[in-house]
This record gives sequence, structure tokens and C-alpha cells, in this order.
Amino acid sequence: MPPVESDAGLLAPGWTGSPAAAATGDGAYLRALLDAEAALTRAQATLGLAPAEAATAVTEAARSGAFDVRSLAERARGGGNPVIPLVADLTAAVGTAYGPYVHRGATSQDILDTATMLVAARTLDLVLADLGGTESALAGLASEHRDTAMPGRTLTQHAVPTTFGLKAAGWRSLVLDARDRIAVVRASLPAQLGGAAGTLAAFTVFAPVTGGGTPGPPVDTRPLVAAYSRELGLRDPELPWHTLRTPIADLAGALAFTAGALGKIAVDVLTLARTEIAEVAEGSGGGSSAMPHKANPVRSTLIAAAARRAPQLAATLYGAMAADDERPAGAWHAEWEPLRDLLRLVGGSARDAVELTRGLRVDADAMRRHLDLTHGLIVSERLAAELAPVLGRARAKELLTRTAARVHTEGRPLADLLAEEPDLKDLDLADLTDPARYTGSAGDLTDRALERR
Amino acid sequence: MPPVESDAGLLAPGWTGSPAAAATGDGAYLRALLDAEAALTRAQATLGLAPAEAATAVTEAARSGAFDVRSLAERARGGGNPVIPLVADLTAAVGTAYGPYVHRGATSQDILDTATMLVAARTLDLVLADLGGTESALAGLASEHRDTAMPGRTLTQHAVPTTFGLKAAGWRSLVLDARDRIAVVRASLPAQLGGAAGTLAAFTVFAPVTGGGTPGPPVDTRPLVAAYSRELGLRDPELPWHTLRTPIADLAGALAFTAGALGKIAVDVLTLARTEIAEVAEGSGGGSSAMPHKANPVRSTLIAAAARRAPQLAATLYGAMAADDERPAGAWHAEWEPLRDLLRLVGGSARDAVELTRGLRVDADAMRRHLDLTHGLIVSERLAAELAPVLGRARAKELLTRTAARVHTEGRPLADLLAEEPDLKDLDLADLTDPARYTGSAGDLTDRALERR
Amino acid sequence: MPPVESDAGLLAPGWTGSPAAAATGDGAYLRALLDAEAALTRAQATLGLAPAEAATAVTEAARSGAFDVRSLAERARGGGNPVIPLVADLTAAVGTAYGPYVHRGATSQDILDTATMLVAARTLDLVLADLGGTESALAGLASEHRDTAMPGRTLTQHAVPTTFGLKAAGWRSLVLDARDRIAVVRASLPAQLGGAAGTLAAFTVFAPVTGGGTPGPPVDTRPLVAAYSRELGLRDPELPWHTLRTPIADLAGALAFTAGALGKIAVDVLTLARTEIAEVAEGSGGGSSAMPHKANPVRSTLIAAAARRAPQLAATLYGAMAADDERPAGAWHAEWEPLRDLLRLVGGSARDAVELTRGLRVDADAMRRHLDLTHGLIVSERLAAELAPVLGRARAKELLTRTAARVHTEGRPLADLLAEEPDLKDLDLADLTDPARYTGSAGDLTDRALERR
Amino acid sequence: MPPVESDAGLLAPGWTGSPAAAATGDGAYLRALLDAEAALTRAQATLGLAPAEAATAVTEAARSGAFDVRSLAERARGGGNPVIPLVADLTAAVGTAYGPYVHRGATSQDILDTATMLVAARTLDLVLADLGGTESALAGLASEHRDTAMPGRTLTQHAVPTTFGLKAAGWRSLVLDARDRIAVVRASLPAQLGGAAGTLAAFTVFAPVTGGGTPGPPVDTRPLVAAYSRELGLRDPELPWHTLRTPIADLAGALAFTAGALGKIAVDVLTLARTEIAEVAEGSGGGSSAMPHKANPVRSTLIAAAARRAPQLAATLYGAMAADDERPAGAWHAEWEPLRDLLRLVGGSARDAVELTRGLRVDADAMRRHLDLTHGLIVSERLAAELAPVLGRARAKELLTRTAARVHTEGRPLADLLAEEPDLKDLDLADLTDPARYTGSAGDLTDRALERR
Repeated sequence: MPPVESDAGLLAPGWTGSPAAAATGDGAYLRALLDAEAALTRAQATLGLAPAEAATAVTEAARSGAFDVRSLAERARGGGNPVIPLVADLTAAVGTAYGPYVHRGATSQDILDTATMLVAARTLDLVLADLGGTESALAGLASEHRDTAMPGRTLTQHAVPTTFGLKAAGWRSLVLDARDRIAVVRASLPAQLGGAAGTLAAFTVFAPVTGGGTPGPPVDTRPLVAAYSRELGLRDPELPWHTLRTPIADLAGALAFTAGALGKIAVDVLTLARTEIAEVAEGSGGGSSAMPHKANPVRSTLIAAAARRAPQLAATLYGAMAADDERPAGAWHAEWEPLRDLLRLVGGSARDAVELTRGLRVDADAMRRHLDLTHGLIVSERLAAELAPVLGRARAKELLTRTAARVHTEGRPLADLLAEEPDLKDLDLADLTDPARYTGSAGDLTDRALERR
Repeated sequence: MPPVESDAGLLAPGWTGSPAAAATGDGAYLRALLDAEAALTRAQATLGLAPAEAATAVTEAARSGAFDVRSLAERARGGGNPVIPLVADLTAAVGTAYGPYVHRGATSQDILDTATMLVAARTLDLVLADLGGTESALAGLASEHRDTAMPGRTLTQHAVPTTFGLKAAGWRSLVLDARDRIAVVRASLPAQLGGAAGTLAAFTVFAPVTGGGTPGPPVDTRPLVAAYSRELGLRDPELPWHTLRTPIADLAGALAFTAGALGKIAVDVLTLARTEIAEVAEGSGGGSSAMPHKANPVRSTLIAAAARRAPQLAATLYGAMAADDERPAGAWHAEWEPLRDLLRLVGGSARDAVELTRGLRVDADAMRRHLDLTHGLIVSERLAAELAPVLGRARAKELLTRTAARVHTEGRPLADLLAEEPDLKDLDLADLTDPARYTGSAGDLTDRALERR
Repeated sequence: MPPVESDAGLLAPGWTGSPAAAATGDGAYLRALLDAEAALTRAQATLGLAPAEAATAVTEAARSGAFDVRSLAERARGGGNPVIPLVADLTAAVGTAYGPYVHRGATSQDILDTATMLVAARTLDLVLADLGGTESALAGLASEHRDTAMPGRTLTQHAVPTTFGLKAAGWRSLVLDARDRIAVVRASLPAQLGGAAGTLAAFTVFAPVTGGGTPGPPVDTRPLVAAYSRELGLRDPELPWHTLRTPIADLAGALAFTAGALGKIAVDVLTLARTEIAEVAEGSGGGSSAMPHKANPVRSTLIAAAARRAPQLAATLYGAMAADDERPAGAWHAEWEPLRDLLRLVGGSARDAVELTRGLRVDADAMRRHLDLTHGLIVSERLAAELAPVLGRARAKELLTRTAARVHTEGRPLADLLAEEPDLKDLDLADLTDPARYTGSAGDLTDRALERR
Repeated sequence: MPPVESDAGLLAPGWTGSPAAAATGDGAYLRALLDAEAALTRAQATLGLAPAEAATAVTEAARSGAFDVRSLAERARGGGNPVIPLVADLTAAVGTAYGPYVHRGATSQDILDTATMLVAARTLDLVLADLGGTESALAGLASEHRDTAMPGRTLTQHAVPTTFGLKAAGWRSLVLDARDRIAVVRASLPAQLGGAAGTLAAFTVFAPVTGGGTPGPPVDTRPLVAAYSRELGLRDPELPWHTLRTPIADLAGALAFTAGALGKIAVDVLTLARTEIAEVAEGSGGGSSAMPHKANPVRSTLIAAAARRAPQLAATLYGAMAADDERPAGAWHAEWEPLRDLLRLVGGSARDAVELTRGLRVDADAMRRHLDLTHGLIVSERLAAELAPVLGRARAKELLTRTAARVHTEGRPLADLLAEEPDLKDLDLADLTDPARYTGSAGDLTDRALERR
């Protein structure tokens, strides 16, 4: 067998080196697996089902750092999951006296699912903090540019004016939506404890430590699951969820949502940062290996890349809900890497989004200049409405269509051409064709959106 | 151009003919589009921005049924969406007097997004009803079979006993999770109104009907959006969401979740209905074109098929969140069919799930028989726990491993072989090896799960 | 049960009304199902396993048009596929004399899979024709614009110059790649004939028509499958492929590829058609329901939308390869609609691509103007190479970096600033900084690419 | 910044420790990146565009192992790709004399795409070898069990008999299909060389080493690309393919196909290995952390898990075909990890498939026993055909339907019940109802399929 390789994130500039990367690495999973094992023994000790010394011994062994992640990875192959070799190593580390209390009554899935929830909880906390930083930066941009007019673009073409404030407020509202969804899922992450087939049966046959050798009537397992969850800071589950994958699916949805929300910001920045548009620029663009002059929108690029991947990773997780029996042969195993990938991608994107939004440079002058690119046609909608009472709807429409064609062919401003029309001489055409005066409720909408906390 | 074809669902036994199919067909979308247009004119009339007669005229024309869905579909190609030809036809149907009040100030996306929300709302109501029917049927099964022992299966192999009651209670808990997620999304579906680029600008230049010819200061558009939403029974949105696709993403997540939740039930039924297992059977199996004796689990098959498709449809919708500008060139258009497909698939699955769960026949005797298939090894976990105090952990484990091998080679029951061990003669081996007596907390868990409403 | 609705493509401007739509509608599937049934009886007649009159009777009944697709769709629900009711109706239509020869020996999947291959073959022929039209239009563009310089853009920023000819030649090369992949799959589409479980067993017990009542030894079924395939114009399969889904997976791959290839063209056109860039425009832009002046790139938009959906549809089909047993309970059913959707989306995109590429208007002047947007920095790579021999590599780099900064701050052309450097006075700076003279091998590459047929 | 974590595959028992894991790790990518850089300088030296000493110096530095993958990963963040820091480190390692020849004329994407092709080529070679091992093992199984009758199962129910030989031959045919697709893609993998925007422009301004200081006319870049490709053992590309992603899409398709092909085998084994069926067993089952008696089908489970993930990874890659401009801002970056994941998953699955198929234990007796589970109904199709000539089609059908019902209620064999019918007394009912004698063309099909090499 070739030596086990390890990846440091060479192909992952989007998340390497981020706090989320540290929170989701093999080391983090190993710690979480050990946390779960230790919590289980402690919970049993709390209820008198294991000696206090066993809890101490397991907890200390779990914290000892004497576990080799490469060796565990290699040996995970036999049984198809890393808990089996880990239990062997942990039991050995605890020693003969209390070794039997390691993993007692549990199944591999109890530990791996619980560890996954711990890893998810820790990563989501990081994501929530970064979403907070992003929404705050966006609030600043929206407020500062409440009245910065710019072209509204639909299907790639200038439509009518909008404001950069409204755009930033919209981005922020998506980030808040993401935050709300992540926060709900974060609070709901449950511990997993069901035993071999989800009945908690093994726990019902352990005699209390203080009792004699004869097991009493089946132990009520509810306090055990509650104590275990409490030890871990996770939600006490209503049922073992070995094949009721609500927590995984909820994570998938909230993470795909967040990747998409940040992705919306990124694709907008990428468009607005184009050389020809240049209405915004990233604070610190990335260089190029070939061209000294380039300043690439790298943060947006990496966020956009993550947004392209997250939906399909989420799809794999939603697909794993159709998990057969009491533990599926494949659906469960198919969750592990995609969920971690999602946590990492979103963690990395959230980090990059803070940097992106805090550093974003906005060129209000360029925005204003671009409003004139269509020589006034960007307010043709307004003119259609304003001229109708004056000329009648049909004539107004006919005049505008004809004049728009002249704007194209003659390259002259719409206002100038309309000024030639005698019937319009009483109108303030300069005002009516001023794009900056046709931003509708953009300011009000921005104000209202910023009230949301 | 070839004639427009129409599909009746020949390839879609999973949803054809279902209420959800009727609620999501081209006809239903057409009605919703017209509902949105009529609501817009009525909302304007309510606020004095259009004559009451215009509202009546548009509403009546919208209800007239004088619209040809095939022609609209064909003409949608030019501008890339069906609202453009629909506005033309509706304006013509309303006539010259009030035609100008049709679609006034709106953009195509306002109408299509709103119609989509109406269709979604109507379909989710159907789904919620069917999820209710399903959870009720499952509650009955869980209650009836609270103590029906059966093999717990993990990675396809008998693990330890469980109960059918716990399995049904678990299914129900997934259905309730789905119901809760659908209900949240259902209540959140917003109307869409933003005008050409989401600023509502056009609405700010319409003079009140009762006023003179001179437009006043920009109209506050908030009451208009509120009135429009009220007319439609949809939520009043905080912002236009042309490219803030939270409602679409939320639908994607809730629908993929529901497909997966029902899919879990289906894959379990499919396994349990296998000829060799036959612990459950669908109430009315489907026939075969070749074999007279077959009774296929058709409802489960179709639900399982939907569960295979939904995640990828949801992925497309999550991917569409990265929508550029004020209206994207592609991301929006990529939502329409996949969202409808999801609504249909889930609507059809929900219908089938009611039928499946109400009709499910459970063979408790077969379950009991199968508990003996491993000759007692299904309770080896229990014996390991019970024999340890008697023999010491190491000897107990050694004895069990050796005896398990003999069970395999000699085909004799575990209890008989253990009875040959003198050290165990004081144990009630018949009791200890009775699978039906090793269901742990299954009963308690079932009871608790059934308390959830 | 609500009446069966039918869809006319209201939500599908990308494919409605296209030849591919007609080739994939419910009507087309119905015809293909009937073609498969008739071919089966004819093949049996050819080999003396059915009377010639039966073949004629079935063929005529199949062509009679006396089948109600809505009724079939509705009745497909019971057994989960449309072949079961179709066989009933066809048998009735054929009458008592020869009705027994309808579907004799076949299973539903034989007929539905075969019909799917027929539909795919017919649609791929349309796609191939449209890819031919597209590559031809692109060859024209590449040839015409072989030397039309334009900015090469990487990560949204101007990098170094390229030519529109090379861009068009690249697009064409992708279209040819798609054509090659579609052609390979088209030629490989097999008939399906396996009987109930893929052993062709039923066909081995039919006595030859001319023989007596006693069946002889098992009939060699190879000639039957060959004759059936021949009747259908499909490939004679090596094995029944009920759960060996190579043909479906190959279709998935080739169609996703084609959607992506056309999608690349579309996203480039969408970028180049932006108001600020306007280097290309669609021949006939689509209008807007709100703004009279808009000319939207609708063809590109719809092609881009299809490219966003196709990969996930293909994923569902690849996922269905893991089909259990001799016919899967779900994986097969999950193929039907996604495969049709893929065929339609690609068929519609291919149609739109012809129109897009034939009508594309290229503004070479705009391209030339944009080469100067960076004031010469677009050739900084060249200058770094050219100045190094003159100044030494280090000094050259230092000078360029410093000068690039001045270009940004002073807004003066790079050539003017460099002309101030005494050491460079012997260089032809006008030539060295002329973007149109730094297109490298673009012309040669274009020529070579156009040699491919 | 937190320290860079590294993953050893703790969550990946499906591929950890496999040859494919070693071929796709960060270390393998680093080596391939360095191979590409060295090949570029060597190719330039071959053509006299760089001194031979530079080629030697770069090649030696590239092989020196003096590169820190963690540091590179960390520094990749700035510019968004790992080539930028690698070029810096490699240039430094080469030293001032020949450092300028490192990466000369290339862009990051040239090197990363080329490295990806090298990694893919090396991994596909491993996959091809393992597919060879698998097909060989399956040929042995098919041949050995050519006549081993077993139940054919459709929609989970016994349909008609088949043979295990035909099943294994079908599996093998899928493996051969995968092999053929992988081999085609393997042979087509191209080098990448285009320079900053795909025009190879930088290479046209380098003076030949032996020439004077004055650049001649633009160098023909064709020999350079050919020499570079030759150095790498990759295909000489027709065009730079920075945004013509045929090689990536082809890999996606072939790898998703292979995952699905192996997935089909896995899901069949999982079904047949169920405790109730037990017609096959994995050679060495995996243990359980809770239950001493369990022997889980771990290889199949992990292959099935990979098959659930591969389609969505492929979807991301197909989606990345719509790559804008000369280098996309996101689509390219979104390819890197999913393509590696696909290579690893398929590499791991191919390894597991060899072990699975070589070790598979087949219980022909169990298969034979199960043929009787339906008391003869598994041959009802045959009887319908055989009794028709004797009783007339209608009476035959009526008798069979009635008798099938009695089989269910009375639990008596079909043969016994039919023997009570006076009209059938001349038939050899034992023979007609013997499932092992109704396997149709299974043997012939197996023979034919095994002829394929």
C-alpha cells in the first residue's frame, strides 16, 4: 500500500489557511471524534453507569494527542469508517482498567455523526462571525451610496437607473437571510446516540456501577442521551437519526444558500469590475504570473467558484436522505466528504466576503458617466410615462420609438432630439432625461432594508 | 416552425393526474400570470392610481379564459418570456379604454415571479395536506406496531432487533420535519414588484387618477406593493427580489427535503417488500406487462424515483442564486422549469405517500421469523454485555466469537450452543437470546416521537 | 382525479416550437412506443414466429392514431409505466385474431427503452444538423475576422490582445467536439429486447408458426433481436441493457457536453454584448415589456439558461446507472423525464445557436477602440520581453512597473511615457505598443483550426 | 492566519491509501506542476529559444524537492492559484543565471492545466489496470456460473429466472464500456500552452538564443507546443483550451460513467448479500464497532458511496464549460477540487472493485433455493405461453390467475395445483415449472458477451 498522502490545500486557495479550514481538517475531526467518545463515558459516569475514574481516564486519553491520523485513515478502510480503529487505539490508550468503558454501548455512527455535528457547529460559528462582518461592511456601503446613481442592468443591457446603495442593501439582505438560516441550523444541531440499530438497547443492559451484578429492569435511556448532549453542547435529539438525516439536509440547504448569497455579490462585483465598466474594484487585486499590470478580482473569483460547487455538493447530501434500513450501505458514507467540502467552501467564502466588502472601492463618477452611455435612452421608460399625458399614449410611443432609433444612428442625446419637438417645449427635458433623477424608490428601499438587523 | 406540442404526462406516472399536476400545469401558470396582472391594476385602483373601472376591466378580461396557451408559448420565444405576449393579448382583451392600465409600471419578471409564487403557494397547500395524511397514517402504524419486533439492518446485514413501530415513528418524524419546512416557506412566499430594475421607478411617475395632469412628487411605493401583495394573498416583500432569490432557494431546499423524507420511506418499503423479505407490502401492487403473478411496489418506486431527481433540480435552483445585475441573462430563465418540476415531483410523491402509508400491509409474523435468521446472533451484542460480568470480558468475548463461528458452520441456534457451557447454566439463556426482548428503548422512543404534533 | 393537464411549453421559450420539441413531445414518444411494438411483431413474422398477417395488423393499428395520450398517461399510474395501458389499447385495436401477437414475449422496459432510443435518434439528427449550421456560421466569422484584434480578457480584466477570429475558431472547435460526441452516440443507440428479466426466455418457448403444437428446443434469440433492431434502424445490442445503462449515460454525457459547448458561446456573447462593451450584438434582440429601447441578447440568454440546467440533468442520469437487479425500482423511472428534458434543452439550444451565430453582428471598431482602454498596458507583457535585452531584465521590470503606475494616475498612454526614457529612443515604441501588432499566433491558430472538418 | 492543516484521508476510506490517492495528492500535483515548468524550458531549449543550461538548471531545480507545499498553498491565496508562488520559488531555486527562463512566456493556467492532465493521465493508467483486473475476475465468475440459475428480480420482486453468469457477464460488459471510455480519454489528454490569453504571443517575441538582439518576425509557435507536449507525453493540442474545456468535460463523463458502472455491481452485491438473500458475500467482510457477528459488505458500500457522489462532481465540471472570456473568473477555479475528487473516488472504487470481484463468494445453492420461494410462480410467464396452445389463450390465462391466487393462499407449489387439472395431464409439469429450465438465452448471451475483449 502506498504511504498515505496528505493534502495541504494546494488546489484550494478559496479556503486554505482560513479558520474554517482549521475547523474542518482531519485534525479537527479527530478531536471531535475523541470529544464524542469522552463525552459518552462522562455521561455514563454522571448517571452512575460507569466509574468516575473511567470518565477521567477516557477524557485524559482523548486529550493526550497520542493518535496518528494517518494510521487511523489507513486502517479505516477495513470496516469502512475511522471510528473502528480509533476505538481500538483509544481503548489501548486508556488501559485495561477502564478500557472497557470506551465506546461502551455505542456504534460507530453515533460517534462519527456526533463529531460531524461538533465540527459543523464550530465552523458555523466562524461563518456567522464572518457573515456579520460582511453585512456590517455592506451596511456601510449602502448607507454611503444611498443616492449614488448607476445603471440598472437587465439581461446585460442598461435598463433604467438604480443606485449602488440599493444594490449593496440587496446584497446585505441576502447575507442576513444566510445568517438567519445558518443560525437556525446551528442551534438545532443534535448529538447522535442510538447504539447498533438506533434502539439504544445496549445501554439498557448495563448495570449501574453501584449496583450488584444483576442488571435491573431496562434503564431509561433518556437521561443518558440528555447528559451526553449536554456534555457536547449539542441539542438533545428526539430520536436517534441514523437514517433520519434532517440535520445533514438542513446543513446542506443552509450552506448552499450561503454560498449562493455570497456568490450573488461576487458575480456582481466581477461584472462591475470589468475593465470596460470599472465601477468597483477589489481593495487588493491579485497579480498575474504573466502580466505586470493586472489587478484581478481574486476574492470575487474564489467566492464565485465556491458558489458553482456548493449546489451539487448539497445535492449529494439531499440525495443521501433516502437512506435505507437502520444504517445505509453507501448513503451515509457519501455524506462525509461533501459535507466537509461544503463547510470549507462556505467558510472560505465567508472569510473572503469580509475582505471583499470591507475593501471594495466604488467609483461613483464612473457610475454617473455610464448613465449617459445610452444617450438618455436609459430613461425612455420615464419618458413614455411622462409624454403620454401630453401627446397621448400612441403618439408618445411612436415619437419615442422613432427618436430612440435616431439616438442610435445619429449618436445624439435623447434630450436634444426631443427638444426639437414643438409639443414638448413646455417640458423640462433636462430634468426628465436626467438619469440621476429617475431612481424611483431606491433610496426609501435602501433605508428600509437597513433597518433590518 | 413545427406546431407546438403539448405533454400530458405520458412519462410521468409519478405526478400525472395528481392535484399538484393540475396546480402546476401551463394552465395553472397562465391563470396565475393573469391573477398577478389583475391584482396589479386593482392595487393601483385601490390607491387612486388607476380608475376603478380599469381594475374591473382587467380583472374580467383576465378571468375570461380567452387566452391561448400554445400561442403564448410560441410567441414567448422572441423576448424569452411568456409575459410579453400575454401583456399584448391582455391589453387587447381589455380594450382601448383601459388597456393602458394593463401591466402599468411593471416588468415581466414582476408578473412571472409573482405567478410562480402563487403556483407554489397553491401547490404547497396540497403538499401540506398530503403530508398531513401521511403522518397520520404513519402515526397509526407506529402505534399499532409499537412492540412489533423486527430485525434492525445496518449495511444490509441484521444488526440487532428493532421494532416496526420505531421505524414508522422515524418515518413520521421525517414527514413532520418536511411539513414544518414546507409550512415555513409557504408562509414566506412574497409577491414580486420592482419595475424595470427593481427601483419601482415607473410607479413614482404616475399621476393619481383624481389629480390633475401634473405629476406630484415621487409617490411612496410602499402602499402599492402592500396592496398588490394583499390582493394576491402573498407576503409583502421588504425589497424587490429580482436577483435576491431567497424565495426560490427556500423552495428548493424545502422541496428537496420533502422528496428525500418521502424517499427514505420508499426505499425502506422497497427493501422490506422484496420477495425474500416480504415484511411489508403495498396495499395495491402494480401489475406487469409480462408476468401475471407480479405485484410490484409501484408507489414506493415512483416516490424513490422522485427522490433521485429532486436534489439535482434543487441544485440548479441554488446555482441560480448567483444572478448577476438587476436581472440575469440565464440564471432566472433556468429556474422556471426546474422549480415547476420540483413542485410536481413532490406533489406527486406526497399523493403517493398517502396511498402508500394508508395501504401498507405489515406482516409481523415475517418480521418475527426473520429475527431468527441468524440463529440468535442478532443478539450477540446483548450477550457480550451480559456474559462479561459472569465470565470476564475477555473470556466472554472469546466464547462468543467461537460460538458465533459454530452457529455459522453447524447452523444450530446460539442458545443451544451456549447451553453447553457449564458456566452459563444459571443464566436464562432463552430469555437472553430472545430477540423480541432486546428492543431497548424502541417503545419509549416511539411513544415520545408520537407526542409530536 | 383532476383532469390531466397538458403543457405547451409556456415556461420553455428555449425549446418550445423547435423541431426538437416536436421530436420529444408526448406524441413523439407515443409514436415511438407504437413503432417499437410494431417492429417486434414484424420481426417475429420475419422469422416465422408470428403470422405475416399479425405483423400487418399490428403495424396498421399502430399507425392508426387511435390512441389517447391523456388516457394512457392517466392509466400509466397503476403499474408505473405507460406501456402497460398502451399494450391493452393496442391489443384491443388489433382485434382478437392477432391481438395475442401484440407485445408477445416482451416486457414494458423493452418497449419504453426502445422508444426512448428512437426519440433520441430522431432528436440527435436534428441536433447534428443544427450543430452543422452553427459551425458553418462560426467558420465564416472566424475567417472574416481572422485579423480583427480585440482585448483578450482574463478574470474579467484586459490581459493581452487576441483576435475575434481566434475566439470564433475556438467556439467552432467546441461545436465540432460536440458534433463528434453526438455523432458517436447517435450511431451507437441500441434497440432493447430482453423480456421479463433480460434472458429473452419468453421468446424461446414460442413455437414457429409453421410448426406443430410442440415447442422445439429453445429458439436462438439472436436473429430475433437482430431483426427487431433492423426494423427500427437501431443498433443490434450485444446484451439486453435493462440495467446496463451505457446508452443512457452516453446520451447524458454527449448532451451535457453540447449544452456546455453552446453555453460557452452564449456566455461570451452575453459579455461582449454588454452595453459598455457592445463588441457584438445579436441579430435580432428581444424586446422588453417595460422599456422600448432595449434589445436583449435573448438567444444567448436562453442558451446560457440551458447550459445551467443540463449538467444536473445529466447527473441524475449518471446516478441512475447504479440500477439494482434486473430492473430497478426507481432508477429507471428517474431517467425518463430528465433524458427528455436534456434532449429538448439541447435541441432548443442548437436551434438558437444557429440563429445566434448566423445573425451575430461584430463591431470591429469597438474592439479596436477597447484595445486602448488600458492606455497601452494591454501590451505590457510584450514590453517586458522587448525591453529586457535593452535595459536588462531587472531595470526593464522596474521601469514598467513604475510607468504602469503613472499610466493609471496620469491617464497618459504608455507609449508617450516610455518615449520620455532616453534609453528607449531607438525603439519603435509606436509599433511595440500597438495592440493590434501583438496577437501572436492567433492568425495561424485560426487557420489551423479552420482546417478541421 | 491559522496554520495550514493537512488531510490524510480520515473521512475517505474509499480512496485513502490507494495508488490513486498517491497519484492525486498535493504532492503529486506539485510534482506535475514542476514537470510542466521543466518541460516548458526544455522545449524552448530544444528549439534554441533558451540555453541548454537553462533547461538543465530548471529540470534539476524542479526535481530537487525543495518546495514546501504548505507554504505554496498558503501563498496561493493572493493571486488565487498555486502557480504564482511556485514560479517565484522555482525561479529562486534556479538562481539568477537561468531564473529568467523559468515559466517564460507561459501563464499560470498553462502550467496548472498541464499538471492536471499529467495527474489525470497517471491516475487513469491506474484505473485502467484495475478495470482490467475487475473484468478478468468477472469473466471468471461469468464463465463458472454460466448455468447457475437464480431469480431475476424486477422492481424488487421475483420475475423470471436468470443466471448468475449472465449477471456477471453484464457487470463485465459495463466494466469494459468504462475501460473503453477511459482509454479514449486517456489517449486524448492534451498539454496546455497558450500564454496570457491563448495567442502564444509572448513566445513570438523571444529572440532565438543564438541570434542577435533583434527579434525576427513572429516565431512559429507550433513546434514549441509540439516539443512541450512531447516532453510531457501528452497530446499536442490543436488550440490552447483555456476556455475550451473539452478535456475536462471528457474526463468528467468518463469518470462519472466508471463510477456508475462499478456502482451497478456494488448495488447488486449489496442486495444479494442481504441477510435474507445471502446469495453472494464479500470475500472479507468488514467488522463492526458494536456487533461481533457482523460481516459487512464494505467494499460494495464504499463503491456505492462513490457512485452517489461522482455524478454531481461531474455536473460541476460540465457546468464549468460555460467559461467566459479567455480565462473565466470562477469556472476554472471550480474545476480543480472536483476533478481531483472524481479521480480519487474512481481510483479508489476501481481498487475496491478488483478486491470485491476477486473475492466474491457465490452461493449457488441459495440461488437455487430462492427460485422456489414463489412456489413456481416465477415461471408463470412460461406457463402462460405453454398452456395457451393446450387450453386456448383465454382459458390458460384464467387458470393461471386462479391458480396463482391459490398458490398464495394455500402455499402449495404451482406444479401440484396444476397437476389437478385433467386437461394438463399430458404435460410434463415438473419440467415446465422447473425454474432452472427457464433461463432462456442466458447461457448464449453469456458466451457471446465473454467473447468481447
